[in-house]
Amino acid sequence: MPAPSEASASIRFARPDDAAAILSLITELAEFEHLTHLLVATEETLRAALADDLPRVECLVAEYEGKVVAYAMYFHNFSSFLTQRGLYLEDLYVSPAARRMGVASAMLRKLAAIAVERQCARFEWTVLDWNQSAIDFYENIGATVMPDWRVVRMTGEALTKLAGGPG
Amino acid sequence: MPAPSEASASIRFARPDDAAAILSLITELAEFEHLTHLLVATEETLRAALADDLPRVECLVAEYEGKVVAYAMYFHNFSSFLTQRGLYLEDLYVSPAARRMGVASAMLRKLAAIAVERQCARFEWTVLDWNQSAIDFYENIGATVMPDWRVVRMTGEALTKLAGGPG
Repeated sequence: MPAPSEASASIRFARPDDAAAILSLITELAEFEHLTHLLVATEETLRAALADDLPRVECLVAEYEGKVVAYAMYFHNFSSFLTQRGLYLEDLYVSPAARRMGVASAMLRKLAAIAVERQCARFEWTVLDWNQSAIDFYENIGATVMPDWRVVRMTGEALTKLAGGPG
Repeated sequence: MPAPSEASASIRFARPDDAAAILSLITELAEFEHLTHLLVATEETLRAALADDLPRVECLVAEYEGKVVAYAMYFHNFSSFLTQRGLYLEDLYVSPAARRMGVASAMLRKLAAIAVERQCARFEWTVLDWNQSAIDFYENIGATVMPDWRVVRMTGEALTKLAGGPG
């Protein structure tokens, strides 16, 4: 059989009714990755995920003496394997004047509580690999630093160029 | 001055009206990280971001001979430095029968086009550090593998425990 041409495949936005077909592909992917033991998605959870929505970014602030002294900006990410959202912490920052008050820990606990309350499977963020004191702190509260995943990023001209290529 | 007690800081959800205070903290964070040249957020863009919302997960599918043969699941992440959403690709998978048709490339182009159309500053995903052929492919289309960031993840009992601590 000759290789089918690129033009034969059409790309469209998935609908909730695609849940079964997509779950079947997710299962293939999990098999390829030897990760089927982590795959708990069902057609129903995937269907709901494809239909649902949530705010795109949220932010907690901490106030001290009437002033906002810390913020935690976060959003929901999503695991296809779990068909479940997670809570992704983009930034957590405490102003120097408000340090050593336990604000960062209190915000992490609040974020964890939000994650649990919203049935998020994961609470995730990133750390610089040379920031050992942060890594020690995170491991101490039970988080795991994933050794083998790397973030890939495309911006600017490369992104525009890819977007404008023949479709 | 004695260290203020933890109880003096109160944590709440940020409102659009917190934009100025939060931007001031983001600026401090950027200074600490020596990354002020990357900070383009303004009070107005941050205010809008705190008020806006979007679907939580979206999915493209590719159909071939009436069958869904590939999917790309993605959602919007968010950069506090840019106060701009990005497009985060959770999974891109093409069934073996539909490979060598250019489906993956076509889907990446479509995703890049969505990102550009929606004024996303970044198109991001992750790769396993040992997957050199994937890394080569991504670098070839202009993406950058970030060498120093690591994903930190908290799940299960550790998450529940953190959520339930005194707070």
